Amino acid sequence: MELTPQVRKILSWYESDNPGTKTNLARMLMQGRLGGTGRMVILPVDQGFEHGPARSFAVNAPAYDPHYHFQLAVDAELSAYAAPLGALEAGAGTFGGAIPTILKVNSSNSLTNIKDQAVTGSVREALRLGCSAVGFTIYPGSDHAFGMMEEIAAMAAEAKSYGLAVVIWSYPRGNMSKPGETAIDITAYTAHMAALLGAHIIKVKPPTEVVEQDEAKKVYEKQKIDVSTLKARIAHIMQCCFNGRRIVVFSGGAAKDTEGLYNDARAIRDGGGSGLIIGRNSFQRQREDALKMLDTMVKIFLGQA
Amino acid sequence: MELTPQVRKILSWYESDNPGTKTNLARMLMQGRLGGTGRMVILPVDQGFEHGPARSFAVNAPAYDPHYHFQLAVDAELSAYAAPLGALEAGAGTFGGAIPTILKVNSSNSLTNIKDQAVTGSVREALRLGCSAVGFTIYPGSDHAFGMMEEIAAMAAEAKSYGLAVVIWSYPRGNMSKPGETAIDITAYTAHMAALLGAHIIKVKPPTEVVEQDEAKKVYEKQKIDVSTLKARIAHIMQCCFNGRRIVVFSGGAAKDTEGLYNDARAIRDGGGSGLIIGRNSFQRQREDALKMLDTMVKIFLGQA
Amino acid sequence: MELTPQVRKILSWYESDNPGTKTNLARMLMQGRLGGTGRMVILPVDQGFEHGPARSFAVNAPAYDPHYHFQLAVDAELSAYAAPLGALEAGAGTFGGAIPTILKVNSSNSLTNIKDQAVTGSVREALRLGCSAVGFTIYPGSDHAFGMMEEIAAMAAEAKSYGLAVVIWSYPRGNMSKPGETAIDITAYTAHMAALLGAHIIKVKPPTEVVEQDEAKKVYEKQKIDVSTLKARIAHIMQCCFNGRRIVVFSGGAAKDTEGLYNDARAIRDGGGSGLIIGRNSFQRQREDALKMLDTMVKIFLGQA
Amino acid sequence: MELTPQVRKILSWYESDNPGTKTNLARMLMQGRLGGTGRMVILPVDQGFEHGPARSFAVNAPAYDPHYHFQLAVDAELSAYAAPLGALEAGAGTFGGAIPTILKVNSSNSLTNIKDQAVTGSVREALRLGCSAVGFTIYPGSDHAFGMMEEIAAMAAEAKSYGLAVVIWSYPRGNMSKPGETAIDITAYTAHMAALLGAHIIKVKPPTEVVEQDEAKKVYEKQKIDVSTLKARIAHIMQCCFNGRRIVVFSGGAAKDTEGLYNDARAIRDGGGSGLIIGRNSFQRQREDALKMLDTMVKIFLGQA
Amino acid sequence: MELTPQVRKILSWYESDNPGTKTNLARMLMQGRLGGTGRMVILPVDQGFEHGPARSFAVNAPAYDPHYHFQLAVDAELSAYAAPLGALEAGAGTFGGAIPTILKVNSSNSLTNIKDQAVTGSVREALRLGCSAVGFTIYPGSDHAFGMMEEIAAMAAEAKSYGLAVVIWSYPRGNMSKPGETAIDITAYTAHMAALLGAHIIKVKPPTEVVEQDEAKKVYEKQKIDVSTLKARIAHIMQCCFNGRRIVVFSGGAAKDTEGLYNDARAIRDGGGSGLIIGRNSFQRQREDALKMLDTMVKIFLGQA
Repeated sequence: MELTPQVRKILSWYESDNPGTKTNLARMLMQGRLGGTGRMVILPVDQGFEHGPARSFAVNAPAYDPHYHFQLAVDAELSAYAAPLGALEAGAGTFGGAIPTILKVNSSNSLTNIKDQAVTGSVREALRLGCSAVGFTIYPGSDHAFGMMEEIAAMAAEAKSYGLAVVIWSYPRGNMSKPGETAIDITAYTAHMAALLGAHIIKVKPPTEVVEQDEAKKVYEKQKIDVSTLKARIAHIMQCCFNGRRIVVFSGGAAKDTEGLYNDARAIRDGGGSGLIIGRNSFQRQREDALKMLDTMVKIFLGQA
Repeated sequence: MELTPQVRKILSWYESDNPGTKTNLARMLMQGRLGGTGRMVILPVDQGFEHGPARSFAVNAPAYDPHYHFQLAVDAELSAYAAPLGALEAGAGTFGGAIPTILKVNSSNSLTNIKDQAVTGSVREALRLGCSAVGFTIYPGSDHAFGMMEEIAAMAAEAKSYGLAVVIWSYPRGNMSKPGETAIDITAYTAHMAALLGAHIIKVKPPTEVVEQDEAKKVYEKQKIDVSTLKARIAHIMQCCFNGRRIVVFSGGAAKDTEGLYNDARAIRDGGGSGLIIGRNSFQRQREDALKMLDTMVKIFLGQA
Repeated sequence: MELTPQVRKILSWYESDNPGTKTNLARMLMQGRLGGTGRMVILPVDQGFEHGPARSFAVNAPAYDPHYHFQLAVDAELSAYAAPLGALEAGAGTFGGAIPTILKVNSSNSLTNIKDQAVTGSVREALRLGCSAVGFTIYPGSDHAFGMMEEIAAMAAEAKSYGLAVVIWSYPRGNMSKPGETAIDITAYTAHMAALLGAHIIKVKPPTEVVEQDEAKKVYEKQKIDVSTLKARIAHIMQCCFNGRRIVVFSGGAAKDTEGLYNDARAIRDGGGSGLIIGRNSFQRQREDALKMLDTMVKIFLGQA
Repeated sequence: MELTPQVRKILSWYESDNPGTKTNLARMLMQGRLGGTGRMVILPVDQGFEHGPARSFAVNAPAYDPHYHFQLAVDAELSAYAAPLGALEAGAGTFGGAIPTILKVNSSNSLTNIKDQAVTGSVREALRLGCSAVGFTIYPGSDHAFGMMEEIAAMAAEAKSYGLAVVIWSYPRGNMSKPGETAIDITAYTAHMAALLGAHIIKVKPPTEVVEQDEAKKVYEKQKIDVSTLKARIAHIMQCCFNGRRIVVFSGGAAKDTEGLYNDARAIRDGGGSGLIIGRNSFQRQREDALKMLDTMVKIFLGQA
Repeated sequence: MELTPQVRKILSWYESDNPGTKTNLARMLMQGRLGGTGRMVILPVDQGFEHGPARSFAVNAPAYDPHYHFQLAVDAELSAYAAPLGALEAGAGTFGGAIPTILKVNSSNSLTNIKDQAVTGSVREALRLGCSAVGFTIYPGSDHAFGMMEEIAAMAAEAKSYGLAVVIWSYPRGNMSKPGETAIDITAYTAHMAALLGAHIIKVKPPTEVVEQDEAKKVYEKQKIDVSTLKARIAHIMQCCFNGRRIVVFSGGAAKDTEGLYNDARAIRDGGGSGLIIGRNSFQRQREDALKMLDTMVKIFLGQA
């Protein structure tokens, strides 16, 4: 399928990448119902590692099966599916070629309080499993942040040399208040750091209107940066990611009911966000409900809902 | 010997593995009296490292000899024999080909309180000794857990690239109550993490009905997850390991008399567990008693006892 | 363009370097309006990493775009442009060949108090992006100083073997008073250490007349080292960098108004400093103002202002 | 010289080793007056590193010369000579081929209290110097024990791949009482760990009848393990080293007079110990005395004294 | 120039080294006015790193120039010149072949209290710069001593494999009294450790008659080791370095006036020391004075003063 102008434009932002990496970015951007629009919806399933299997899957027992998530992403015609090593290994043979995959190469868990993650995957494993990208979480603000940045810096360089794309989940931790973890200044900063670290795709949480750092507050006030609406905040995040030259996807946010999720998605769309990465809200409901919800999400980004 | 349908089905779960690794999994699954049934009984002997030689072997002095354990596993027609480097080196020449072996590549000991293990073997050593798999212990919950996960992640990738299988012993430590170490939620979680780390075979202890973590408790209660019987708990563990798509073996449990062990084994069987890994209960009794006990265990998994 | 005698002389100082590294030094020394004079003005943009995007760019919003800085450096006809990985990746295709670039290979950020930086780039990435040099910050005085020195020592050796030049930002931290961080003795010392570590280009802040260390104070007084004017202090720094055999560039200093910046630049010029590295003062003002200011700076080093 | 049945039997224990390693074991087992008997007396000289040169050699000044020790081992017709890098370098040219050498690849010293050792040699250096084996000390019980085990595990694998033999000095440290460091249970345990780590030759101190660990005490009492005489304790150690399938050598022990040393040696012989490793007692006396003492030791192991 | 018997004898001590390393040792031993005598005077210039440029060079301003030191060593016809990376890079082109150089591959500085050094050079850099040797400082007694020993052990092995010589500066630090740092027992011990680590040339400070360690004191008294004169102490140090089979050079000592330095040098000569390594006393005086002083030093070792 020929690349659309929207996708060609996005690929042009990644002007230093080799054709292999651009091909893998294109694979995700051309996949599914949003294929060619320049928007993405990604299904990530690392809840099992983060919170354990029962807390993740018991509410919708078929989701214990790794095939379930591949199938859900395929049937919902999403852009990509992201998961840790074992989960991809369990389905890469059956679903290879059906949907682009992102190997989540580091993971934390709820049995520890250490603000770090274990590196559990590698570029070579991503290649072995036919993935299009590696995904890595950094915790800016944590005492382990420098180490995590060094890990992804090395892994990103290796990934790019092999033609893979790089996705960075940038989650602030430590050295800040709890509300600060989703503050607009902090979120913008951590997104910007992910861009500087060489991410092709950046994942952050939808920011609140809190401004955490005193020095930042002065600037936000003096420069009258609009943080009053989610749409405005999303636009600010995009600006902070190379003036919109990077793909930035957002998680579903704290909204609890489905309508709230849709409204968040509309704000992300209207603010110029690249799309969604939506895990728990996808697989922690009945499959039919999930497909309906994802259908609406896709429609939102198609401008049809 | 042609693979049975049961074994073919199990191998199909490992859809991303190369033929070398599948061959080694098949070697263990086709070995001994349970060969072809999809069930396994493994003899592990790392007690000498963990607790010292006298505490491990004095009660049955012939067991001081590494050949004793190879011979026991061969004579009991078990699925595989697992031991640390030196112990395999001492018998690999004599028993090479007689029974699949698993090189236990890390070990702890009773002279330390550090919740970590030393890496004492490697993939290259496993290949040199003709092993079918490497075995590795992780301590989720320990301050060293991330490091241990990174060690096995790297070693598992190397093992798979050389056609070996990977066994992970997943033992919770630290950051929890003592009963929490065998709690159903914790055991299910640590088994799931082993699966996500890419283990082909997972070893956990039979869980109790304790639910340790508050967040988990809410889910177990709300979703009415049955943890009332060992059989139900085993079924839950299997579900938490990719909905039954991974081999999970259980240690003999805390039961003290032989009949209790048999009942545990029946519950493991009936819950869908893949089998047993049974060390101290095997070699800390007279050889004739051990053979009789193992014969019964095998019969239980054959549905004959 | 044929090398000028001034540039030939400077290249002669780097008598142990291979032709590749000399070529890259020459590229920077022959670039722009100061090309051939032996003086340099470099545009560095790592404020986004250090302080976040809004604090860095909101005052002049076009600067959110990585292309903005490349274009500014090109239009102002500067000697080189220095930035972290992601920022160079975002423009290396468009501006490759238009201006020499320096990959800033380590970075700190305002979310941490740890006096260290994360290594976020590499020699291989610098080569991939067509850079002329790698840039690295050390924090002499910090508890992490030895580690940082070992990182740049290894990276500098690698860079030189591939024909790249090495720029060291030498910033004292820890184990001293706040005024000590810009004291003349400390600045001279940290510049000298950068030279001993093998830097081709050294970046320090313009020093004050404070002398921090007691042992140094004795020498400065006894030897009547003139530290009374910025010009004299610059001359002392140059002397401390192999008696003037190394390129040393200075940041704009603490002067707040533009005229103060110009006077600092004149003192740097008159003291024999090699030039300026001027970031925030360049991009945190309107483009036209910046071009005007940079034009004056260039003129100062051309002896025309 | 054709291998004797005793040596052939010992080599058969090392059934997983390549011919290169067996050759080097045979070199030591066939060397000197005990050659062919299956017994060994080794001269180790690392006292200079451990306690300094004056404390080690002043009492017998010719021993300051590295050649002295080579010559002593040759003239006493011992099995092998073990020393750190520099000491072997100083004599390897003169004495190459005259006696098998063991490169002691890690060393501690009396200027530190840290219960670790520095790795000061390597397999490549051992090969360069024509050694038959590498020797490594572990401190089970120390906080550094896991690290030391990982170092020797990696080095032993490398050594074996190049056809060298591996000697482990296993000395308990930390986490125990002072008498516990030579307790029978601890000594047996640390010898067993050395065997599991893949040592061909294990070196421990002659154990006392103290039983240190509570859990062990129960077993020693219940199983009536005889620890009443040194001979019985030696036999127990041998049993704990793969039921006698490993070479175990003992240091001279705490006995102060020469007759006491002889009696210890007789107990080691009668308990089935493989031999002695006898340093200070050899070189801290006049050469003639040393030769006489070593002559008696050899005779003891020949059953002639 | 044909090697003299004295040099041939010295080279014979290094019986395990390859011809490349022996050639480089010979280069230093055959260089300058002491060439062929078996004695050496080395010019080391790492004061700039250790104490800063002004404290090192202001008293004799031409010494700010790296060429100054090369020229001084050449004009004084010394044996070798030792300096950190940047200083050698700055003169290796001009002075290559004029005098053997030693790359000082680790360095400390006065801005830190950590008793360690940063590794700032490498074997590959030494080869690139045409050096004859690498020089490394260890701090026995420091908490970092094991790490430093492991660094030089690895680097020395690499250096020897490439035909370079190895110089170890052995300076006791920590775990002792201040006078203990130059005590005879400690100095002898640290010199011996350098020899055991494989140094070809050992550098220590001239020891005082203090005996620091209690255990050592007993031996020094009982064995009546003469430490009453510097000559006797030097002789003891030489004995402790493989009974005189290693080159040991001494720094100028604590003597303040020039005549005192000469007397120290005579004692070093008469005690059998191999020579001097004399930095600050060389370059912290006017060039003519320095040349006169060095001329006298050379004459002392020629037996002419």
